[in-house]
Amino acid sequence: MKTLIVHAHPEPKSLNSSLKDLAVSTLENAGHEVQVSDLYAMNWKAVVDAGDYGRHASSPLKVARDSGRAFDAGTLTQDVRTEQEKLLWADTIIFQFPLWWYTMPAILKGWVDRVFTSHFAYGVGEHSDTKYGERFGEGTLAGRRALLSVTVGGPQPHYGARGINGPIDDLLFPIQHGILYYPGIEVLPPFVLYGTDRMAVEDYPDVAKAWEQRLLTLESTEPIAFRRQNCGDYEMPSLRLREGLEPAGRTGFGLHMRG
Amino acid sequence: MKTLIVHAHPEPKSLNSSLKDLAVSTLENAGHEVQVSDLYAMNWKAVVDAGDYGRHASSPLKVARDSGRAFDAGTLTQDVRTEQEKLLWADTIIFQFPLWWYTMPAILKGWVDRVFTSHFAYGVGEHSDTKYGERFGEGTLAGRRALLSVTVGGPQPHYGARGINGPIDDLLFPIQHGILYYPGIEVLPPFVLYGTDRMAVEDYPDVAKAWEQRLLTLESTEPIAFRRQNCGDYEMPSLRLREGLEPAGRTGFGLHMRG
Repeated sequence: MKTLIVHAHPEPKSLNSSLKDLAVSTLENAGHEVQVSDLYAMNWKAVVDAGDYGRHASSPLKVARDSGRAFDAGTLTQDVRTEQEKLLWADTIIFQFPLWWYTMPAILKGWVDRVFTSHFAYGVGEHSDTKYGERFGEGTLAGRRALLSVTVGGPQPHYGARGINGPIDDLLFPIQHGILYYPGIEVLPPFVLYGTDRMAVEDYPDVAKAWEQRLLTLESTEPIAFRRQNCGDYEMPSLRLREGLEPAGRTGFGLHMRG
Repeated sequence: MKTLIVHAHPEPKSLNSSLKDLAVSTLENAGHEVQVSDLYAMNWKAVVDAGDYGRHASSPLKVARDSGRAFDAGTLTQDVRTEQEKLLWADTIIFQFPLWWYTMPAILKGWVDRVFTSHFAYGVGEHSDTKYGERFGEGTLAGRRALLSVTVGGPQPHYGARGINGPIDDLLFPIQHGILYYPGIEVLPPFVLYGTDRMAVEDYPDVAKAWEQRLLTLESTEPIAFRRQNCGDYEMPSLRLREGLEPAGRTGFGLHMRG
């Protein structure tokens, strides 16, 4: 595999950083190639602004249009182009981050906001009343697979089907489906560690073993069965899921999974 | 009302900035007090790091613990303390932002990550096997109400109950329930503008009228009926919703709304 690890934690001695380091060594020892985007170590600029689009920044700024023009012209900033190149190089992308306020830390959201430009991650393919782009299963990043490796402070039952925070799969849906599957990446079931606020040092060996196990079986892991946009499941142009495709009782985000 | 508007768009001439400006003038003309946190204009630091906690930053950095210590000691950075003071001053908080990748822009997530520290927004109240804090309806910010005002590029049907992106209420749940209701803020139904990628200048007067109407009726608007954590609906310590409380067929995030 050619693996890109996008890592978002400020502390090199944190659990998240240990899991990132373990992923690098485990994958390299198994003969895979690895690149790491350690966003804090890179002092990653988290905020989209006109500076991202150089001479293609219009006044007033139009983020979608201007980012697409700068992408087409090859004039995005070097930091963004480097990340786009890493994504094109990789066949596997691991995101390592703590769940902060039920989603990714700002620095990682800023990586998405800046790297996933128009004409690269969205605004790809024909947009008309009969086709609304190549996305959700198609797109620039099709053929790649991604995995979220997430640490969660609270206990697992709080994230269960009836848990107060909401089910973890639903909390991660806007990332897994909305950010990753949108530009074509297949998404593997996440690796989630719960209760990390109260984790003790002596718990780490078991955690490390479970993580190594996931890493060494990535290639045979089946992705989440999200529905493809352009294979007949959705009406056009409403992109409303056709009636009767889902098992009885399935609602909400779950509708967008097959079977 | 004492209204805080937290605004997150890089372009002062954007639709989002126009809606922010209109909110200021509409509320002030109606006799309300208004403060604005214009995050781009403030050059808001989006990224949590050790610099946020001064001498309370431990090595290795522990974000939750260190932020709580710095909060207790009053040594958080001035920018964060100012935002916390604005939140304590306000009875109403409006968040104005574009939906980027199905959630808030990084600069606004970074406002949450940095301002919502431990002992201020979480880690409040007794945490034991019989009580898991004052949150979800209780907490430092109880008694306040918030409203998301969100612009969405795509068309409304894509965000409907069967729309490909998932229902807008579910996409906003991690923000409305997970970020706002968690520290005690009641959340009003959001003001969502769809199809803004293709909105024309001549559409703006109708949009402005609808927004003014929402602003002038905020005081009489009923909040979303999220369930309170500590009123018997949840088992302890699992914080699992008790069986049989929800209408038949209700699942997922919807479980956490009454009635």
